[in-house]
Amino acid sequence: MLPERLRRVIELFARLPGVGEKTAQRFALFLASDANGVGLELGRELEALTASVRPCDDCGNLADLTESGARCDICRDSRRDARTLCIVHRVQDLLAIERSGAMRGRYFVLGRLLSPLDGIGPDELPLEKLGARVRRDGVAEVILATPPSVDGEATALLLARELASLGLNVSRIASGIPHGGDLEFADQVTLGRAIDGRRSMG
Amino acid sequence: MLPERLRRVIELFARLPGVGEKTAQRFALFLASDANGVGLELGRELEALTASVRPCDDCGNLADLTESGARCDICRDSRRDARTLCIVHRVQDLLAIERSGAMRGRYFVLGRLLSPLDGIGPDELPLEKLGARVRRDGVAEVILATPPSVDGEATALLLARELASLGLNVSRIASGIPHGGDLEFADQVTLGRAIDGRRSMG
Repeated sequence: MLPERLRRVIELFARLPGVGEKTAQRFALFLASDANGVGLELGRELEALTASVRPCDDCGNLADLTESGARCDICRDSRRDARTLCIVHRVQDLLAIERSGAMRGRYFVLGRLLSPLDGIGPDELPLEKLGARVRRDGVAEVILATPPSVDGEATALLLARELASLGLNVSRIASGIPHGGDLEFADQVTLGRAIDGRRSMG
Repeated sequence: MLPERLRRVIELFARLPGVGEKTAQRFALFLASDANGVGLELGRELEALTASVRPCDDCGNLADLTESGARCDICRDSRRDARTLCIVHRVQDLLAIERSGAMRGRYFVLGRLLSPLDGIGPDELPLEKLGARVRRDGVAEVILATPPSVDGEATALLLARELASLGLNVSRIASGIPHGGDLEFADQVTLGRAIDGRRSMG
């Protein structure tokens, strides 16, 4: 009932994270009926994007591809402390930490977490690349910023073991009540972590 | 912090219906990091889509553009009853009615509803095009299938007035308790409509 090309666009939209058949159809119908040329521009920009933007060779953050490879703004910034490395799951997490302004070192994006249920074991993590990065830059301190979920914690434990054996100073970001949060409505695990992770004020 | 091209793609994704800044960023980061080439294919298909798919000249449904213009599968299907016209708000609504299999006539897609709050008055509706369609095809029956919302009802009232003056048989789709629905949890307006719209079983 719909043109073949439109059906193909719907299929492709449905491969975006969190997008189902109905939402994909809404996107495609919007762009096909739109008079402002958003669809055409999005199409052109996506083509150009895939040709010019790559994960950074050093850290996995996104970077412009140049003749000498892809290196992101943070890895090219000599003012950033190369000896402090913050390990995150996804580029989104890196961006969130950057917005906080609390990290003066550099990053390493894992791209995935340990997940026995999804068949992702230690061999699927980029541990070799991480080790090479640590040695090359003479990293002294590692901050594990994987999320405080089951998979994130398991990944942090694995990384802590691997990295501590190299004599590095390894730490884990704090988990507890968020700023402005209400103890009354915090879940038990979060509250337990807030208490276990208490800091001396004496 | 992100490559310029990626920021532009995020801006464009954020113009899709129901997509905010965060979701747009998730889509763009997914496609930029994806190794399966979904981004490149989506880009190419979107470019081709905007060049080859248009709203149908007759009804507003989406159709492949040919040398003689764009006419959708339904308008080209001679087995469909041209004298019965179902008027809908959006292409999505047309697709939903087609899935029901209850409509053997043709369609007319308004593209918008009356909406005083958004400054959309009768002049913004394609009434002239609708009138021309009705006369050309010798339409005898019109089914108003705009949604049972405030804007949808107002639009149906306006269309009923305009079309009844042409001597057409005009009807409105029923509003009431959905199939399998529970009276206990139906809202008052729906329940009131179900009673007002009761049908004789005698």
